[in-house]
This record gives sequence, structure tokens and C-alpha cells, in this order.
Amino acid sequence: MRICVLGGDGYCGWATALYLSKRGHQVSILDNFLRRQWDFELGVQTLTPIRPLAERLRAWQELTGEVIELFTGDVTDYEFLSATITASRPDAIIHFAEQRSAPYSMIDRKHAVFTQVNNVVGTLNVLFAIREFQPDCHLVKLGTMGEYGTPNIDIEEGYIRIEHNGRSDVVPYPKQPGSFYHLSKVHDSHNIIFACKIWGLRATDLNQGVVYGTVTDETTLDEALINRFDYDDVFGTVLNRFCVQAVSEHPLTVYGRGGQTRGFLDIRDTVRCIELACLNPPDRGKCQVLNQFTEQFSVMELAQRVQAAARKFGFSIGIDHLPAPRVEAEEHYYNAKHSRLLDLGLRPHYLSDSLLDSLMNIAIKYRERIDTSLFLPQVKWQNPHNARCRPMPMSAVATPGAD
Amino acid sequence: MRICVLGGDGYCGWATALYLSKRGHQVSILDNFLRRQWDFELGVQTLTPIRPLAERLRAWQELTGEVIELFTGDVTDYEFLSATITASRPDAIIHFAEQRSAPYSMIDRKHAVFTQVNNVVGTLNVLFAIREFQPDCHLVKLGTMGEYGTPNIDIEEGYIRIEHNGRSDVVPYPKQPGSFYHLSKVHDSHNIIFACKIWGLRATDLNQGVVYGTVTDETTLDEALINRFDYDDVFGTVLNRFCVQAVSEHPLTVYGRGGQTRGFLDIRDTVRCIELACLNPPDRGKCQVLNQFTEQFSVMELAQRVQAAARKFGFSIGIDHLPAPRVEAEEHYYNAKHSRLLDLGLRPHYLSDSLLDSLMNIAIKYRERIDTSLFLPQVKWQNPHNARCRPMPMSAVATPGAD
Repeated sequence: MRICVLGGDGYCGWATALYLSKRGHQVSILDNFLRRQWDFELGVQTLTPIRPLAERLRAWQELTGEVIELFTGDVTDYEFLSATITASRPDAIIHFAEQRSAPYSMIDRKHAVFTQVNNVVGTLNVLFAIREFQPDCHLVKLGTMGEYGTPNIDIEEGYIRIEHNGRSDVVPYPKQPGSFYHLSKVHDSHNIIFACKIWGLRATDLNQGVVYGTVTDETTLDEALINRFDYDDVFGTVLNRFCVQAVSEHPLTVYGRGGQTRGFLDIRDTVRCIELACLNPPDRGKCQVLNQFTEQFSVMELAQRVQAAARKFGFSIGIDHLPAPRVEAEEHYYNAKHSRLLDLGLRPHYLSDSLLDSLMNIAIKYRERIDTSLFLPQVKWQNPHNARCRPMPMSAVATPGAD
Repeated sequence: MRICVLGGDGYCGWATALYLSKRGHQVSILDNFLRRQWDFELGVQTLTPIRPLAERLRAWQELTGEVIELFTGDVTDYEFLSATITASRPDAIIHFAEQRSAPYSMIDRKHAVFTQVNNVVGTLNVLFAIREFQPDCHLVKLGTMGEYGTPNIDIEEGYIRIEHNGRSDVVPYPKQPGSFYHLSKVHDSHNIIFACKIWGLRATDLNQGVVYGTVTDETTLDEALINRFDYDDVFGTVLNRFCVQAVSEHPLTVYGRGGQTRGFLDIRDTVRCIELACLNPPDRGKCQVLNQFTEQFSVMELAQRVQAAARKFGFSIGIDHLPAPRVEAEEHYYNAKHSRLLDLGLRPHYLSDSLLDSLMNIAIKYRERIDTSLFLPQVKWQNPHNARCRPMPMSAVATPGAD
């Protein structure tokens, strides 16, 4: 298939582009490098030393002979997006090109507005470009499990049959997202369903859980292909942060009681799920929704798993319960369906001791790059603006007397 | 109460501002006059000759002694909005300041993007401004019944109890909006619920039906206070258009079979509903939803009512069934609850023969201003862009030989 990966320089996008290229698809990447810019804005960096995209793509071509074409620009620029679609004529477009951090969207009004405008306009543009230039193309859109929130009933895959006052209908599952970022994905989902209906487009909305890990078969081929590993309070995800905290001998930082339960998956399953979605498009006019995760964990369970794994490496660490920076239930019912990707052929990589060992090994390998000042949450949901002014990390403080 | 009406120069906003001022509230208006600009863009005008806002406000003050303060600017300009809130310190903010036409949002990509960005960013700004400067203020937000779509089950007021797999929860009612405009209101609704939850704001989301009529007790006090009466294919609403078509002896234009059923209300009820909402704020942290309409009609029923009313005035007109420009069900179940405003004290003005007579009289009075080229729909939902290139109305065509 001809597949265009929007946001192909990011964490999931990069791993996906390589996997699809390896599997024989003709892959192109569109990216504007905003993800790298946000690192500068926040004064953070990925634990793993990622290379510039041009260097990554050259290394991939040298190693595999496969060419991944690069289109540098922004999906919110419709002229550029149209030109990319017209040139690459994709059978499927995988849309990762959004601001994907909940804390980033909660920093202040400007970040909230940026997140919603960037994500909503980008997706509207993608829908219009498909309608105008490639109407049979399958849109594979990354949504999030966070769109559903934590209702007191089972979470279905996108739609639910409601019996009400003696009548019945299948309707979009009600959404109760927990940040301006998660809201932006809910807005996208509604826009996509509508575009499929009026224009006969075909789309798959992947409500993805929290992704962990950094290693895939492709990214380990060469150091130049290494993927991101984010552990900071804004873009980092919880399992990565715990592993980095463990090797820093820093207590694991659990927000509140840690009963928050979410769906999780290994990045090796992310890339496989995306291919399964591409290979199984819905009919024209339909928006199918797949819940893309493999296991549910509470934050406390993950902390205990990491605590045990760390002990084997000689790290004896505690667990700190911090005041919750988010507004969310700390204990709640959670049962989210996720059978459709399994039905399509997904064979999950469950969270195992060996995977935790591999994460610990990465954290140990790049230990010198760890900035411990990034461990504590600085963005609080209840504040309308959060100043991001961190103490300079010790390693970067000038030695007194030095020039 | 101190009440700030955002979008107070528009159709519902103007009638509401005067009504609240008459009822003894201290009213201010914020407007950027975009609504008047859209008339220029589309080459249309209201049937009634409305005056500039400054003139309207002077006339109101001369007639009643009441001062309505004016803040000229845009809600998407946060600096301006903040200054307005800080200066007017409202107890309630009524938010009409959005692009409110479904066809306008469906003209092309730019109009779709403009509608969603304008409406979503405006509402986000209002939420942040309340949080920062007036946290106890009650947001009264105009949503639309069109957010719900036409599900095959009863439509509740904002929330629904779902029993599912032996468990139960009350969740936001699932939304299936039918245009990029209606989608923008769904996005707003989700953002508002979230802001109430995290910041303890209080809001009322009014899901309003289709408003008809132009006359309120206040706007009839003087010709200078006359309200808009839109009948064009983009901003006009169906009952107004039918009356104007009738006095032009033009067949009434029904889209498809005309079984589309919606909630309707008289503008005299709009203004009363808004006051009832202001007087009955929810507790901090809550977003209450009220369905604001008084009667359900199908488009065909309305056409037949206007046909009968027109006959009394000597107009014998037919009904044309045009190909539906929208993508919507032409026959469907529709039963939407709307008891909460009645419980709060609303005494509806139902659609009566005398109201239809009054609409016909307005159409006759301003007959010379009718532009019949505005009767036919030019924006089709299935097109990704709709050229708006109308034949020049006959009355504006230069006479051959004239200079």
C-alpha cells in the first residue's frame, strides 16, 4: 500500500513508519518538527539521543534499501497538505500530527487554544484534502482512550446501543474527556464521523491507550534509528517516568492514591495495530472505531511492578503519593472493550518482567542524560495558568569561579 | 443583575438585550459587527431595515432612560474580552457571539474552519476570562437543538441515564450534529462541561430550537429598534423564508419530502427563556442543559400553515419539493424533551394564526426589499466547495441604454 504518515518524526509515528516500510509498504512522512520544538520550549529532551530526521531516513535507506519520502510542512497549511496528498496519492493516511500531551494543553489559555485549533484544523484539513484529491483513501486517525473518561458503565468501541423509553438506537459512545487535549480528540472524532457521512469517506478512529517502551525490531537495527523515550512531566508517560525515577533512586511519583486505571500497550503493538487498521478499511461512508490497548492497569499497580523490577537491578526505591495535579477520579470503575484488534489478528506483547528489564536497561544506559528536575508535575488542572519556571538542573549549573 | 450580552447586535442578542434592560437588569453589549459583515460577503440583507447599533442604543435610551453600555470588539481577542469582563463585572454572561449558520459553515473549507475556530476559541476565551476575573459569574451559552441530530430514541435535556451490562450511569447525551456549525456547538458543549468540572464554574447550555418572528414588546417601541428578519438561503430560517416567498407569490421551497422535524420557538419566548436561565443559575461546578423550544413541527407542516395563512391575504401559492441540499433524514422519529424551562415559569407563545398574520404583514410591509434570488439553496453539503455566484437580482440590473 501507499501510506502517508502525518507526524512521522514523533514517538509513535517514527516507529510506525519504519515498521510499515519494512513490511513492504510504500511509506512517506509528513512532519513540521513541532514535537522537537516543544522540547526546546519546555527545556526537556528525550532520554534517548534521537537524530535529525534526515539522518534517520538516510540510515534507514542504507540499512534496508527502502526509501521513505519526506514532506516537510504543517497539516494546518492546506496548500502544503494538498500538494503532499496529490504527490503521494496514498491508499491510507495515518494521522499522528497532533499536539498529544494533556499537561501541555493545560499550561494556560494559549496552550489550550493552540492545542484545540492545531488539532481540529489539522484534521479538518485532512478530511477536506481526502474529499478533494483522494476520496477513496482510508483515514487512520489516532484518537485516545482518554476520550471516554471513566464512566460507571463498560466502555464500548466507539458506539453503544441505548435502550430508552421503549425504543433503541446505536449512537456514538458519550465522551467525558479530562483535558483540553483530550477534548480536541473528541472534537476530531465528531468531525470525522460527520465527514464520512456527508462525503462517503472511510475512516478508522483508533482510541489508543497509554503507550510504553521504545524498542521495536526496526528502531534497534542501528543507533541512528533510535526512538524517543520521554519521561518529563509534560510529554512523558507514566511507565517511562517510573523506570527513569527508579534508576535515579528517586521515589516513584504516584498522583493521589494511584487508583487511576487506564488501558496500556507496548509500542510494538501500536505499530502492528496501525497496520491491521490499514489492511482492514471500513466501507465508504463509515467511521469504525477500535480501542487500541492490550491491558488495563492502575497507576499503583504499575508503580509496584517497576519497584519489583528495580529491586533486581539493586535499586531500592519507595513510592511517593503526590497531590493529584489533574482533576480526575482516583478510584473508579473501568472496563473498556478492546476485542476488535484482537479479532483482526493482533498478538499482544503483554507487560512482562523482561519488558520491564529492557526499559530499566535503557534508563541505565542513558542515565547521564536524566534531568531529575523533570520528575515533578508542574501543570495543575485547577490553575488557569501555570508558570513553567524550573530550577536549572544541577548538571547544567555553572561551577562557581568557572568562566 | 449585571448582564453582559456577547453578540448583542445580532437577531437573538438584540431582542434579548432590550428585554433584559426593560426588566431592570444592567445590560452591556459586546459585539464586533461580524454579522453585518457576513451580509456584505453574501450580498444579502435583512428584510427589515435595521439601524446601526449606536443609533439603536441612543433610541433605546431616549425612549426608556435605560443605558446599555457597548464594548466593540471580538471575543476571540482575549485582551479585549478580559478588559470587558473586568469593566462590566457581570453576574451573568449570555454568549450569542458565534457564527450560527449551518449553510455558511458548509460553503467550503475556509468557512468550515472559520466557524469552528471562531466559535471554539471564543467560548474557550469566555471560560478562561470567567475563571480568571469573575469566577462566580454564570455563563449562559447558546447551543442548539441541532447538536442532538435525529436519534431513534427520545432526546433528553443534555444528559441521559444509560443502563448497560447490569450497570448504570448518567452521561452527556450522545451528539450527532449535522453541519460543521452544529459540530462547533458540540465542541463548545464538551469544553464547557469540562471547565465547570475543573474550575468550579457555573454554566447553562441552552439547546435552542429554530427561532421565528421578529417582533418583541421592546423592538416595536420604535422603528429605530427594529430587529433583523433573515430569509436568505444562508442565514434565513425556514418560517421567515416561507412568509417572504408567499408574499412574493413564489412557491414555498421545501427540501426533499419535508418530513424533517425540529423544535421551534417564537423570539418572544427566546428572550424570556434567557432571563429564566439567568435567574436560575446552577451551583458552582455544574453545567445544566435546557432544551429551549416550545413546539415540534415538520417542514411540510410549516409550509401548509403558511400556505393557509397566505390564502387569507389573497396569495395562492404552491409548494415546491427541491432536492435536499443537506445530508439529513427526510423522515425520522423525533421526540425531544423540553420541560425544564416550562418548570421554571415559561408561558409559551405557540405558533398561532395571528402570529403568522403578523409575519405576513411584515413581509408585505417590506416587500420592496425582497430579493427573490435568495430563495434557492446554493450550498450543498456534499460539495467540498460551493461557489456563491448568484444572478444579479432583477431590480439591481442596469436598464439597457442607461448610464
